[in-house]
Parts: sequence; C-alpha cells; structure tokens
Amino acid sequence: MATLLAFAADGARLSDLRGLTDRLAALGGHASTRSFHGRVLLVVTCTEPALVHAELAASAQITQILDTAVPHPLASRAASARDSVVRVGDAEFGGGRPVLIAGPCSAENPEVLAETAAAVKAAGATMLRVGIFKPRTSPYAFQGLGRAGVSALSAVRAEYGLPVVSELLSVRDLDVLPGIADMIQIGARNMQNYPLLAEVARAGRPLLLKRGLAATVSEWLNAAEYLLAHGASDVVLCERGIRTFERTTRFTLDLGAVPVVKELSHLPVIVDPSHAAGAARLVPSLSAAGLAAGADGLIIEVHPRPHEALSDGEQSLDLPAFAALADRLRVLGTALGRPLAPAAEPDPAPELISVG
Amino acid sequence: MATLLAFAADGARLSDLRGLTDRLAALGGHASTRSFHGRVLLVVTCTEPALVHAELAASAQITQILDTAVPHPLASRAASARDSVVRVGDAEFGGGRPVLIAGPCSAENPEVLAETAAAVKAAGATMLRVGIFKPRTSPYAFQGLGRAGVSALSAVRAEYGLPVVSELLSVRDLDVLPGIADMIQIGARNMQNYPLLAEVARAGRPLLLKRGLAATVSEWLNAAEYLLAHGASDVVLCERGIRTFERTTRFTLDLGAVPVVKELSHLPVIVDPSHAAGAARLVPSLSAAGLAAGADGLIIEVHPRPHEALSDGEQSLDLPAFAALADRLRVLGTALGRPLAPAAEPDPAPELISVG
Amino acid sequence: MATLLAFAADGARLSDLRGLTDRLAALGGHASTRSFHGRVLLVVTCTEPALVHAELAASAQITQILDTAVPHPLASRAASARDSVVRVGDAEFGGGRPVLIAGPCSAENPEVLAETAAAVKAAGATMLRVGIFKPRTSPYAFQGLGRAGVSALSAVRAEYGLPVVSELLSVRDLDVLPGIADMIQIGARNMQNYPLLAEVARAGRPLLLKRGLAATVSEWLNAAEYLLAHGASDVVLCERGIRTFERTTRFTLDLGAVPVVKELSHLPVIVDPSHAAGAARLVPSLSAAGLAAGADGLIIEVHPRPHEALSDGEQSLDLPAFAALADRLRVLGTALGRPLAPAAEPDPAPELISVG
Amino acid sequence: MATLLAFAADGARLSDLRGLTDRLAALGGHASTRSFHGRVLLVVTCTEPALVHAELAASAQITQILDTAVPHPLASRAASARDSVVRVGDAEFGGGRPVLIAGPCSAENPEVLAETAAAVKAAGATMLRVGIFKPRTSPYAFQGLGRAGVSALSAVRAEYGLPVVSELLSVRDLDVLPGIADMIQIGARNMQNYPLLAEVARAGRPLLLKRGLAATVSEWLNAAEYLLAHGASDVVLCERGIRTFERTTRFTLDLGAVPVVKELSHLPVIVDPSHAAGAARLVPSLSAAGLAAGADGLIIEVHPRPHEALSDGEQSLDLPAFAALADRLRVLGTALGRPLAPAAEPDPAPELISVG
Repeated sequence: MATLLAFAADGARLSDLRGLTDRLAALGGHASTRSFHGRVLLVVTCTEPALVHAELAASAQITQILDTAVPHPLASRAASARDSVVRVGDAEFGGGRPVLIAGPCSAENPEVLAETAAAVKAAGATMLRVGIFKPRTSPYAFQGLGRAGVSALSAVRAEYGLPVVSELLSVRDLDVLPGIADMIQIGARNMQNYPLLAEVARAGRPLLLKRGLAATVSEWLNAAEYLLAHGASDVVLCERGIRTFERTTRFTLDLGAVPVVKELSHLPVIVDPSHAAGAARLVPSLSAAGLAAGADGLIIEVHPRPHEALSDGEQSLDLPAFAALADRLRVLGTALGRPLAPAAEPDPAPELISVG
Repeated sequence: MATLLAFAADGARLSDLRGLTDRLAALGGHASTRSFHGRVLLVVTCTEPALVHAELAASAQITQILDTAVPHPLASRAASARDSVVRVGDAEFGGGRPVLIAGPCSAENPEVLAETAAAVKAAGATMLRVGIFKPRTSPYAFQGLGRAGVSALSAVRAEYGLPVVSELLSVRDLDVLPGIADMIQIGARNMQNYPLLAEVARAGRPLLLKRGLAATVSEWLNAAEYLLAHGASDVVLCERGIRTFERTTRFTLDLGAVPVVKELSHLPVIVDPSHAAGAARLVPSLSAAGLAAGADGLIIEVHPRPHEALSDGEQSLDLPAFAALADRLRVLGTALGRPLAPAAEPDPAPELISVG
Repeated sequence: MATLLAFAADGARLSDLRGLTDRLAALGGHASTRSFHGRVLLVVTCTEPALVHAELAASAQITQILDTAVPHPLASRAASARDSVVRVGDAEFGGGRPVLIAGPCSAENPEVLAETAAAVKAAGATMLRVGIFKPRTSPYAFQGLGRAGVSALSAVRAEYGLPVVSELLSVRDLDVLPGIADMIQIGARNMQNYPLLAEVARAGRPLLLKRGLAATVSEWLNAAEYLLAHGASDVVLCERGIRTFERTTRFTLDLGAVPVVKELSHLPVIVDPSHAAGAARLVPSLSAAGLAAGADGLIIEVHPRPHEALSDGEQSLDLPAFAALADRLRVLGTALGRPLAPAAEPDPAPELISVG
Repeated sequence: MATLLAFAADGARLSDLRGLTDRLAALGGHASTRSFHGRVLLVVTCTEPALVHAELAASAQITQILDTAVPHPLASRAASARDSVVRVGDAEFGGGRPVLIAGPCSAENPEVLAETAAAVKAAGATMLRVGIFKPRTSPYAFQGLGRAGVSALSAVRAEYGLPVVSELLSVRDLDVLPGIADMIQIGARNMQNYPLLAEVARAGRPLLLKRGLAATVSEWLNAAEYLLAHGASDVVLCERGIRTFERTTRFTLDLGAVPVVKELSHLPVIVDPSHAAGAARLVPSLSAAGLAAGADGLIIEVHPRPHEALSDGEQSLDLPAFAALADRLRVLGTALGRPLAPAAEPDPAPELISVG
C-alpha cells in the first residue's frame, strides 16, 4: 500500500476535485482531502502508485505532487515555503515573537501549581508547562499524579488563563489529556513511538514534539511527518539536548539544530534549556543562547522551592530567578528584532473544544 | 507512594507471611507476593516507607530487603547471584548454551516466511524472529503486515515448531501478539516507553528487551526493572548497537556491554549483529565477536532474497550465508566452552497458553 | 617525581621566600617561583611530597597549597576566584567586552589576506585569524603556505595593525611562529599533544587552546593545565564543536560548556561558530548564540570569495555577510550588558617582543 | 602543489622510467619512486596536475594512476587487493596468524619490566609493549621514564628476544626511539598530529597507528595515508575504543571497524581491549571478541602487580590472568581457522638497524 500526497490548486473547492477523486477510485486509490497550512492537501492510498501518480500529474486541479520517497515531505520546505504559525490560545509559535513557556516539572499538589502559575504569569510567561504523567528512569520514582492530577490542572488553567502544555505518555490517556491540555507534548523518549504519534495526531490539539536524545534532525522531522501524515496540522518542534560523551551538562543542547530545522522545515522550533542543562545555574545562559540562535520560544522548568520538587528539582529555577531571566530575555528578544510574545491577558483560559 | 521490595526466607509459605502482611496493612502498606527467580518476593506499596521498612526488618520471615533507591534492584545481582535462565519452548537463555534466533525482518508473505523458517531451522536456529508490526522512520514506508500477518505467523509457527519472537509496538496489540508469539520483543525505540513496559510485563510471555540506541547500560537495566517490577519474570536483554559518530556501520555494537551486564545483572543477554552492522557482509564477524564476548544468544536477520525484502534487506543474510555462519558459530561455541543450543526437534510448537 | 604548587602571601617578595626554598632544597625539593595571575606561585618538584607539603604548610610565607591530585588546579577557580584577563595587543579577553576575531582559514596569497584584513577591521574585528600551517585530513590537500607565508603574514599584520592569532602544528615551527603571531593557537587535533603544549607554554605568547573534538570539559581544562604548569600565563579557551552523531552540522557546538567553564575556571573562553557549523549560512545564528551563552569572544572565518578558498570555503562568510553579522553582534552585546570590544585603532601593530 | 600517485608496470626497472620522469620534469613535475607493497610507486609533485596526469596516462610504463581526490588511496584496496603483511622481528601481522602483544603500560623499573617480559613470553606473547613516553591527562601524573628508560628497554629487549613496540609522543624523541623499538606506536591522541606522522614515516620502522578516540574509520585511514605518503611502508592499524556516551567501559570498542577496515584497506588491524575496557576483568571477553571479529592481533596490558602500577593499573591483567587468557585465545584462534602466531624463539632480539 503506497501513499501519495498532492496539493490542489489555490482556490480549488472540494467539488472541483470530485471528478479527480472518482478517477483515482477507479484506479483503486482512496483519496481524502484536508487543509494543510492554507492549502488543500490530497492524500491518496493505493496499490498502483504509478497509475495514481500519472492521474494526479495529468489533473489541472493539482499543482504539486510531493515525493514520499524523500524524507519528511510534509514537514519540509517543499510543502510550505512560508513559516508555519501555530496558535495555542493567545500564544503564537513561528510568528516572529518568541513564546515563553514555564512551569513545574509535575503537578505535585494544587498549591505549588497555583503558586508557580501565578508567578510565571506575572513574570511574563504566556504558557504553562505541567506534567501529570512523568516518564522516570526508575519504576520506583514518582511517576506524576496521573489522572489524580486532572482536576488540579484544570483548576489552575481556568484560574490563571494560561494555555497549558502537558506530556502524553500512553494512548490510554487520550481520553483525558486533550480535555485539559491546550497543547500535548510528546517527550524525547517517545519521539519514535510511532503508534502514539499516529493516535495523538488525531487528538485535535496542537502538538509539541521533543527531539529524541539520539535522534538526528532527519529522524526528528520524520517523527513530525508521522504527526502531519496522520492528520495533525499544528506541530511545534522542541530541541532539548542530545546525548553525547560530555557529562558536565545532562545533555548537549544542539543549537545548530535550530537554524538547520528552520532551513529544512516550515515548522516552528523552540528550545528547552532546562533538560539540556540539568542544573538551574546553567539555564539562563542556555536560554539566552537558544533565543539568540533563533528559537520560536523557550520552555523552562520553574518551581517555588526547587529543593522540595519531587522531580527535576536540580534543574528548576526558583521564582525570582525566573523573573530575572524573563526580564533579561525580553531585552534580548528586542535587541534581536524578535520581541517576546506579549504577556497573557488576565482573562481566564478559553473553553477547550471537546475532542471526540 | 513508595515501593519496598523484600525477599521471604527460603521455604516460606504464603500462610507464614499472613501475619506480616496484616501488620503492613495496618501501617497503610499494600503487600503482594510473587515468585521471583526461585524466591518469594514481597512487593509493598505504602506512604510511610520508614515504618514499613522497620516492620520488614523486624520480621523473621524476611531475609533481604532490596534498596529501591539504588538503580534497578530486581535486575541486579543483589536480587540473584545466580544467572537467570529464561526458557522459550526448547530454547534456554542463560544456561550456558547460546541460542541462535534467525528469521526475516518482517512477515511479508507466507511463502517467504515458510521458506525462511525451513532454512534457518535446517541450519540449526532454535527460534524464529519475525515482525508483523514494524517501526519505520518514515510513515510512508512498509509498516509490516500488522494484524493481517497473524495467521501467516501462526501457521509457520505450527508447521516448523520453532518458538517465535516478535515485536510489540503498541498496547493496542496486546490482544493478539501474546497469542502468536512465544516471546515478545520490545524494540530499541520503545525501551523507555514505560507504559508499554508496564503492560507487556503482565502479558505472561518471556520478553526480549532491546537496548535503546542512546541508552546507558544503567538505563537499559532500569527498563528491565520496569518489566520485573510490573510482574514479568522472564526477561532477556539484547545489545543491538548504540548510536555514535561512526557511520560505516549503522550503529556501533557495544560488546563491552555484554560482560558489564553479566557482572551487574543476572539476566541473560544476547546480541543482534544485524541491526548494528546494517550490512550483511559485516554480520558474520560481528556474530562471532558477540558469541566470543559471552552472549547467551544471537538474533540474526535472514531472507531468501535480501534484495527483494520490503525492509532491512541490506543487512539480511541469504540462506546459504546463514547456514555457513551457523556452522562456523557452532565450532566457535564449542571452542569457547559454550556449545550452541541443540537444534530444535522437528515437532510442532507447543500450544501457546492463552493470555487473558 | 611529584610536583607541588603553592601561592605565597600577597606582597611576598622573592627574598622573603629564600629561607623557605633553602629548606625545601634540603628536603630534595627543587623550587621555582613565577607570577601567576597577580600572585607569586611556587612550583616545587621533589621525591618526598609529604615532607615538602609539611614544610610548605608550616611556612608563614605560604597562604595556599594547591592539590595536584584534583584535576587542573591552576586552571580552576581554586587558583583564582577572579576571572583572568588576557591581553593581546588592544584586545582583551575576559574583561567583560567580547572580542571579535575574524579572517581567512589560511594565508593563501597576500592580496586575499590584505583584502580580508582591511574588510574585517572596517567591520569591527579587533583581531585577525590566519593560518599558515594547516592540519588537513588528507596529505594531498593544501597544507597552508607554511614558512612561505611568514612574510605575507608579517606584512598584513604591520599594515593593518590587527593582532594576529595563528595555529602552531609542530614544535619545529616554534622558531618562526612566535615572531609573527601575537597569539598562538593550539588546534583541536593537538589539544592532547602534550609535548607541543609543554613547549609552546614557554614561547612567551598568549595562547588560544581549542577544545579537542572528543574532549570532555575536564580534559580540556587539563590541557590548559599543561600550558599553565609549563609556564604559560595567558591562556584563552575556545569551544569549537564536539563530535556527535548529528551530521547536519560539521560538529555540535556545545554552548553549555561556556557557563560550565566559567564556573570551573578563571580562564576566558571564546566560541568558534565556523568550524562547528561547517556551513556559512549557519554561522550568524551560532555566533549570536555563542555571545548570548557568555563567550568572551568569537572567532569567525571570513573570505572575500569563499568558493575560491583553498580550504574551509563552505564555512567562510563573505565580506558583506561578516559586516552585517558584526553589526548585529554589536547590538546584541550591548543588550546583553557586554558590549563588544571597541574596534582597533588604525595604528600599526606593536613590535612583537622577540622570544628567545 | 598537487601530488599524483602512479604504479609502474610489474617488472618495470627504474631505468625504464627514466624517460618518463624526464618528461614529467619538463612539465614541472618532481617524481620519485619507491617500492610499495611489491610494486613500484611513482610519486609526482607538480603545479600542473592535468598535464602530468595526461603524461602518466599516456605512458606504457604506468599501469595505474591513483586518484588522490578520493580518501586515502594508498591505504585503500585500490592500491593493493592483497592483504599487506607487516613483519616485526618474527611477528607477522596480516598473514593469517594473529599476533599477541603484551606488556606493562610503562617501563617503571627494570625489575618489573623483566618480570613481565619473561612471563608474557612464557605465556606465548610474541611481542612486548612498553612505554617510556606516556601521554597523561594531568601534567602532574607520572609521564613515563622518558630517556631514562632507554637502557632498561634495550636490556629487556636483548635479554628476552621479544620485538618491542613503544609509543612516540614527539618528534624530539626520534633520535632515540627508533634505536630501541622494533615498532613505533602513534597513540590515539596523536592520530591527527600530522607533522609527527610525516616525520615518523621516515624513521624506517614498522608503525602501529592507534585510532583516535573520535576518529571515523575514514579519518583513521587518512592518518595511515599520511604515513604511507611520507614514506612508511609498514603500517598496522589498532582499534582501541572510541568515545561514546557509555561510561561503564572507558571507551566503546568498535569491533565493526575490524571487518570495515579489512574491506576498505589492505593494512593489518589489531585490537587493544585494555584501553577500551579500562578494567582488567572485562579484558578477556573483549580480547576473545576482537579475535573473533577478525583482528590480526591483540595488544594487552599486563603487570605483575597491577595495583602497584604507576599508570593504567586498573586495566592491566596480572601474570596468571594473562597466561590463562593466552591459553583461551590459542584455542579460539584455532577454532576460527586463524591459529595464533607461534611463540617467539628463546634467541635474543636481532640487532636494530640504526636509523639515520
């Protein structure tokens, strides 16, 4: 079974494509259409790709056929010369104004979560990061609150009006996470968990795809391709450090990947300095470096009392340190010609659209 | 919520432990018991670990409390000084006679599968490897037959009587895979897919855990710990090459990990030279090296016509090459004092016990 | 033979130490003194380190004994809590104003060299980088002009008044390089060429020590320790990318190493984005990132016509690209509170002090 | 200045080439001839490579022109389809019988050296490894005896009749090392010390070139190419582990490189399990694996009392462990169809030919 991808002519209506899809069906091709970054994308699965390709190539309704034999066609510049813009509530990735995401590693208890949300919002963060499902190296370590954390997360989201990004570990949790997270994160360890990618792609939420710790840029973009091919339209990439021989930092932040991704792909890319550094005192330098390298945003771990955190305390900034860093990043963004996204309005978060 | 692990005295019966588990319950501890490598293991989850620890330490029924703050206690030599032996049909991993597993990357069609099974069995392989779910870097590449491959796999298993190892990619497939695979493989990309590890651990099948391509030995043993902690009793590790800067081979086979794992853990460890090499012509050297390094088995990709394979053809041995290699490995195993496991009997495979 | 390092009390004169060195001599210790970052450092080689240590510890003239069993004591913060400042002509590394070094990979011909020097000076570079000895992977590739390049280098240095940094490959060239280079570079491939480090340490020039492509931060600081232990007083470190599995960039620039080095060491550290990127179009992003990460300078490859360069053309900026980048870095440095070092005066370079 | 390499027809005498070299000289080409693996190699340096190439191509005396634009032509199979055999005393690398080299990390004192030499010879080693110049990460660590070790090394070499391999760190030591070492080792840290390679290539001794710890196979063969291009005729490669993220072993032994090198190059390749392992208890497994992978020899660190060794004690086998390993390797080599080289005769070592 082969897949072909083709873009319809600008302004083409679905009715215009009816004749074509009928002809494709006659060749055994099953065609579906969707909107893809402002264009109409035709996805055709078939067993006779040569015949289907010829039919597509002959059609006046089709302006471009993507080559699925080259790596990650939908994630590539071939699919969109213009930078994609991904909106999550008021936050906008890829539009030229970097987004500041901050929050605790995990939702340990409602008070800490609320305290952190209030502080990072006051400091200028426009999104909140919180995990309720945590991948931990040891099965005996704190694994996050799990479903017990849903109400706390919903409450803080409603009270502070910050869109929330939270990690999905298992398809089993697709019934709850899209209902409480404005953006769903796929973590580094799951970057090549292809069944998870295929399912989350249909969850109807913007997605944050972290780079696997040994993933090449090409493999990372191929993981994004899984998301795009399975129906996701809003994907943001996140560089969070790769595994190398160096151990003074937890991972080696690969900032060269930022301009490389920008060149190869239209997708926004943000930087996670916290997991790369593994130590709070290194986070400010790497945050500034990430912004200067061209990142469309930063995602930073913050905790009111890092030494009390149940996970990742050593790499979490405390509240004053985050506020100071946010001030510094604002100055830096302006100097770079890419001022940070404006702070969120004090209004509550919009209702999440329920996902079937 | 903390977890404590303790071994009961040899010969202890569950009834002997009743008083202890009652006392633990009074402290809020939930205790369950299971057999673990010939001993009775008590697993206690609780919110007051200090009190529970004191109660366990005071009990005459308990001979050893494992420290869950150190990495991978159940996988470690602390839990078993003796090498574990894992049986899969007639194959036996860790008992001193290395097991030869061979087969195609994926079950492309019944004829190829049968042809390969017959040939590798004739050459002396004692287990068959076949994938029906394939993790592929591109969403447009052949992803395996999926559920359509179940009957072909069952048929070849029944006809040739070789136990089968096959990869599980998603918890969604736990309804079918344990019914057709004698051993379930967790692939390198899913080594840190913790929800998958937790669920497959309860599937009642021996498990083959491949090392993640950027996993340290410690992280690999921690992944095994997830399996053991969630109820698996039969786990075999598989070194398949790590990602390094070198690209003349697809991955760098880390044979130092074999004696290191033997030292740190009681679990058997086998070697996959095919994925490490990425080129069939390098497989014989790496197979011999893996055996000489002390591996408890080898898992080798074989295809009757590698250039026609839908995946991994370039690293598959053809049938005569595999037969020649098997002959060479038999001589080598004998010289090493670890003769290969005897070839499988011509009888059909035993019935798989149905897994709820 | 052991080595002990000790600092004399502030204000101690050599005559004050006479009695101590006599007593050390009586114990078989050979002591020499030198100035080290504003303090008097006593270096004692001996065969009875315990006795010598006791003598030093008992002396009122000695305020600190460094432990040579811990890694890189002279390079560490233990030897100097204050940041070291290294002066090369008007350029000053570590004083809070980052230095911009630019120039061609190699001195191919006098005209190109002069054209580049004029342009980078006009754009605001305060030092010129030029190689006459080039380490090349192939013995058949252009190896630099060698000694034939001495006069061209001297001429351009005199004409444009920019201090020059140039790489030393062999102790055989210590007769000429210190006479034409204001700063001597030890390249990544020679970072652990210890005899070269020991000899160049006595050349009387400030040194630029590039990080080896597989060197840990600790090994890099140990290489600096060789320089400091053998008499060098002015050492600047240079992060230029490490070797990892990622190949979309030539190396992976490890910007986490910048704050790590600042924490562990008093030595200035600069960043080479050109060799890390391996592609000119990525150099601006990595330059900005390096500056934002806290680097004390940048060293950038520039060539008037990169496609004509005999080496490293693909990673060299052309003259307008460099001028645009320099402008951007000036704005960025100011926003970071670390304005770039002022452009060099139009005066000719000072006479190089002849090195015995 | 370009270099061209060409092979003369079999049986060509130098007088036959006179006319050709005259014509090349008329084109500005400087030609020299040497014997290279049984053929006459013409090396032509010139400024007009196209003209010289045409002249060579037109000559009936020339049967093959090597392309110096492809990597490492002289090290490649293009230069010799047959495996090269390198003889060092009675030891013969590449002739199908693996060579066992053993000895202490460094010549600490004459007694230990003699004790080790006697034991490894008795156990079947056919060459002795000893360092007098040691590259150490810290400048304060024991750096080897240096020139003070020359007489001890000469004495043990004469007494036990084992050819000696010893490491060269600096061109400054080319006056003494070729006089006491039958084979000169270039260590991993100096693999890309090109001036050292160029000079040692003319020392008239067989060379052992260790792989750099971050060197690709291609870079390693290019380093060998420096040796071959500068006049060395006898080069043996040594895989000793590469730097990766894994730290349970000191380095990651890349045994895939053994068959890869055999495929790409005619040069013999041996394996150093000691430096890769970094721990004596892992050395036997990695030695066996190296032999099974196809290595032409092994180089193993041995010390009578490893805990007393001044360097590398933790990875040195003691004498009984080495004897046991040698026995095991002999059985293994025979099973592999490559029996170990026969033990050295009790005769004293042959006189070393003095090298100008």
